[in-house]
Amino acid sequence: MTATTTQNSSQSTAKGTLYVVSAPSGAGKTSLLKAVLGQMPELKLSISHTTRQQRPGEVNGQDYHFVTVETFQQMLKEESFLEHAEVFGNYYGTSRVWLESQLELGHDVVLEIDWQGARQVRELMPECRSIFILPPSQDELLSRLTGRGQDSEEVIQSRMAAAHREIEHFDEYDYIVINDDFDLACKDLSAIFTARRLRKESQLVRQQALLADLLNQ
Amino acid sequence: MTATTTQNSSQSTAKGTLYVVSAPSGAGKTSLLKAVLGQMPELKLSISHTTRQQRPGEVNGQDYHFVTVETFQQMLKEESFLEHAEVFGNYYGTSRVWLESQLELGHDVVLEIDWQGARQVRELMPECRSIFILPPSQDELLSRLTGRGQDSEEVIQSRMAAAHREIEHFDEYDYIVINDDFDLACKDLSAIFTARRLRKESQLVRQQALLADLLNQ
Ligand SMILES: Nc1nc2c(ncn2[C@@H]2O[C@H](COP(=O)(O)OP(=O)(O)OP(=O)(O)O)[C@@H](O)[C@H]2O)c(=O)[nH]1
Ligand SMILES: Nc1nc2c(ncn2[C@@H]2O[C@H](COP(=O)(O)OP(=O)(O)OP(=O)(O)O)[C@@H](O)[C@H]2O)c(=O)[nH]1
Repeated sequence: MTATTTQNSSQSTAKGTLYVVSAPSGAGKTSLLKAVLGQMPELKLSISHTTRQQRPGEVNGQDYHFVTVETFQQMLKEESFLEHAEVFGNYYGTSRVWLESQLELGHDVVLEIDWQGARQVRELMPECRSIFILPPSQDELLSRLTGRGQDSEEVIQSRMAAAHREIEHFDEYDYIVINDDFDLACKDLSAIFTARRLRKESQLVRQQALLADLLNQ
Repeated sequence: MTATTTQNSSQSTAKGTLYVVSAPSGAGKTSLLKAVLGQMPELKLSISHTTRQQRPGEVNGQDYHFVTVETFQQMLKEESFLEHAEVFGNYYGTSRVWLESQLELGHDVVLEIDWQGARQVRELMPECRSIFILPPSQDELLSRLTGRGQDSEEVIQSRMAAAHREIEHFDEYDYIVINDDFDLACKDLSAIFTARRLRKESQLVRQQALLADLLNQ
């Protein structure tokens, strides 16, 4: 199993890039990624497993795979997760199989996970690129967390505290995107994904036919 | 001298990034850069010195600093050039003073130079990022070089040969941009410049006030 993985990755420079995207609640991570992924078909979003309650409007298998604590623990035992963490009292995890197959196919994959998961992924896949999304100010963060309107004052306070605990880890990331103007933040985020696809190592694989044509005198 | 340079670069992460952009004639480098620089005021284009004849429509001090061979050789003696090369029988060079002051001010600077100059710059400033722009096919390259219409068949053949000699060096560059659809190539090129400004090291300097506000509980 390990031998196969090593062989594949040394063989094929066509392997996709793994991106880890984190943000405090209220930074707009989910909407930003949705907008950017809509424009970039070769970029795939990993759907996490979670034990938290499904919210109104959420679709099982699309927003998350909603599972019981028992199922989650079974998957843990079977080492199905690349990384996992407890956030707000619920379990979240990234399953390994789909992710690895996408990268092998040359697709870039995005994990939308917290700083604890990001650390685990960096350990396991140091070639990943990590991005932290920040709100434009403390005031705006508070108003976005309040504006959501689904939660009590107490929940908001605890989310604000949790947001601060997440923000404290921003400097573990490779890139920082500020979500002030939404369209600009979309452009910034997609610039990171695009620039990496333009690196020579990546283009040598993707543009093989063109390069052969141009070098042929 | 060496000590000062080392001190400066370790001190100030705010220093701009130096980009080297090369391409064969006919790849559209000049028009692409013009479009991208128009949208990115913090990105500055270095104006080279050259001994070649000024063409109709070209403005001295804007397209190039047009100088005599004597002036060029005097500047060479005075070590005014960061790099220089002979291309198509004329001399071209990048003067050092303006460039270094712009980088110190935190501006990103673009050098539009050939592969020989790119090599010299990489030696002197290994932290520079280099970009090679390619036409989408051999046929398109020929038609672009012909379409220019200012030159004889002989000149076109020699430019086509020169284009090939330039293209042979594409794999010395960090990034490859294909200029097939002009707008897409503009987006690609600006993605490279933008992504670099979003790196944590750069954001820590540019977003100091915001980060202080967000970390303040
Ligand atoms: N480690 C890890 N964290 C995850 C995973 N999936 C989601 N998370 C994180 O868990 C936190 C809570 O996510 P949600 O339950 O969707 O709650 P939310 O308030 O909608 O969160 P936001 O999307 O940040 O607004 C977020 O920080 C997510 O990034 C995962 O698979 N692994
Ligand atoms: N090394 C070096 N090369 C330069 C410099 N300035 C321009 N060049 C290169 O010299 C070559 C000839 O440039 P031009 O005289 O403008 O001729 P051109 O046919 O308009 O070239 P294109 O702009 O490539 O279409 C190009 O490859 C330029 O990139 C410089 O300062 N140093």
